[in-house]
Amino acid sequence: MTVSRDEVLAAARRIDGRVRRTPVLQVSPTLAFKLELVQHVGSFKPRGAFNRLLSAKEQGALTGQGIVTASGGNAGLAAAYAARELGVPARIFVPRTAPAPKVARLRTLDADVVQVGNEYAEAHEAAVAASEESGALLLHAYDQPEVVAGQGTLGLELLEQLGGFDTVLVAVGGGGLIAGVATALEERARVIGVEPELAPTLHRALEAGEPVDVQVGGVAADSLGARRLGALAFDAARRYDFGSVLIAEDAIVAARNELWQDYRLAVEHGAAVAYAALTTGAYEPAADERVVVIVCGANTDPATLG
Amino acid sequence: MTVSRDEVLAAARRIDGRVRRTPVLQVSPTLAFKLELVQHVGSFKPRGAFNRLLSAKEQGALTGQGIVTASGGNAGLAAAYAARELGVPARIFVPRTAPAPKVARLRTLDADVVQVGNEYAEAHEAAVAASEESGALLLHAYDQPEVVAGQGTLGLELLEQLGGFDTVLVAVGGGGLIAGVATALEERARVIGVEPELAPTLHRALEAGEPVDVQVGGVAADSLGARRLGALAFDAARRYDFGSVLIAEDAIVAARNELWQDYRLAVEHGAAVAYAALTTGAYEPAADERVVVIVCGANTDPATLG
Repeated sequence: MTVSRDEVLAAARRIDGRVRRTPVLQVSPTLAFKLELVQHVGSFKPRGAFNRLLSAKEQGALTGQGIVTASGGNAGLAAAYAARELGVPARIFVPRTAPAPKVARLRTLDADVVQVGNEYAEAHEAAVAASEESGALLLHAYDQPEVVAGQGTLGLELLEQLGGFDTVLVAVGGGGLIAGVATALEERARVIGVEPELAPTLHRALEAGEPVDVQVGGVAADSLGARRLGALAFDAARRYDFGSVLIAEDAIVAARNELWQDYRLAVEHGAAVAYAALTTGAYEPAADERVVVIVCGANTDPATLG
Repeated sequence: MTVSRDEVLAAARRIDGRVRRTPVLQVSPTLAFKLELVQHVGSFKPRGAFNRLLSAKEQGALTGQGIVTASGGNAGLAAAYAARELGVPARIFVPRTAPAPKVARLRTLDADVVQVGNEYAEAHEAAVAASEESGALLLHAYDQPEVVAGQGTLGLELLEQLGGFDTVLVAVGGGGLIAGVATALEERARVIGVEPELAPTLHRALEAGEPVDVQVGGVAADSLGARRLGALAFDAARRYDFGSVLIAEDAIVAARNELWQDYRLAVEHGAAVAYAALTTGAYEPAADERVVVIVCGANTDPATLG
């Protein structure tokens, strides 16, 4: 299973007007930040959610049953937001352990939140079963072609917004964003994955020759804590030859604080991981290399900054 | 005393590369945010500070004595930052009542912070006296032509970044930003001042026919708490015919929370005032009116959000 650049181009047309075209901050002649944190509901995820829902709608597969998904994080927020905007119900499965503020926030977006089991695997199984039973559309957090193509629209925007660039640094959890961006760029620029040491799904998948379950944790687990890289992301990694660099916990925290102190960007830990590749030297650009850092989300408690 | 558009154009050339060209977020077809909060040291103030210092340098008036100023807020941070970047010392006078974190932050920027008196009027007098005695360059927080011209570069950027717009909403304290922006636009768009009810310097100046001392307070006083509108801002208000709308305290707090909830922008209260003109209806644009809101600073404790 693979996603083509044409699908990303189609996604851009499909979701036009539904998502924000997020701005770019040129930090220096060779460094730019893509400020995706100002996207609806605070992360890039609505791009994929809208593309999945609107694709299904075109095919008559988005019914009054609405959608089901399993996520208490950014994907869940995006699912609830996109469903509400399109006027269909969203049922969102989360584990009983999901933090109360996240559940409350999903409910403010009119989602029907169902708490089941103790971890996301169980919530996901319940979402799949509910989809099969009710005919509601299943929205995956990262491993569906329409989701990957939707996230890729961010890459198309970069090509339009910047005269040209050499490298883009992308945080990796399930890999939907990096797969989409790599597909959008199709070798017009180098793509570098960046992962927490404690959530190395891409790293381990490349070592194993296939996506494998990884024990994940650490400060960025709320946004990058997918247990396994998506099959589509693995396909994209092979096709476009991207790997990942790994970032230690303290470097993620420091990079997040730096984004606040130096740029007044209040981001979630997962969104500081890509920048940390530069601050730590895990990725060292050449002197004239034009680098883009995707600042991909800000669903965070700002009281933990600084 | 007046500032010309040519002075703003000269300022843009002078400070090029010293300040960030801050991005614009197009929120809807008719609403855009100028994200000046990501400027160096978290507000628009470095534009004016660099223009003042670099103008003086061209004239040989920036010596090894460096600069003096009176401000524990955004202007002080900008003064310290600009002086450090240009390799000259900065002596910054603040009242003894200045909060310790602000003093500490000025010192991290290598400023020599002098605490004197109980309010800013006394700190300002001390700065003037120190300038006269030492030959250090006096940098005013808002009422010097080079400062106004520097702030105006933000208006030039807007003209370049947006195909066209009808109206720009600008928070007013001492009035340096609005004077500069109005001069840069020179009637290419409507300029609307926005002030807290508890800090109505422009409002009162227009009522009185001249800048007058105003009792100021409220949540935005740390950034918009100048006691009196600048003479240059008053001149610009007459010349370009801008007034101000007034915003209640609770509406400022609500607008600030909305900027966080809906856009993940963590801003200081003063920077939410302009947006509050829209959320409250204090300014009601026509249906097709293209409005720009300047989001002008983020020197705030993020723990107070949400």
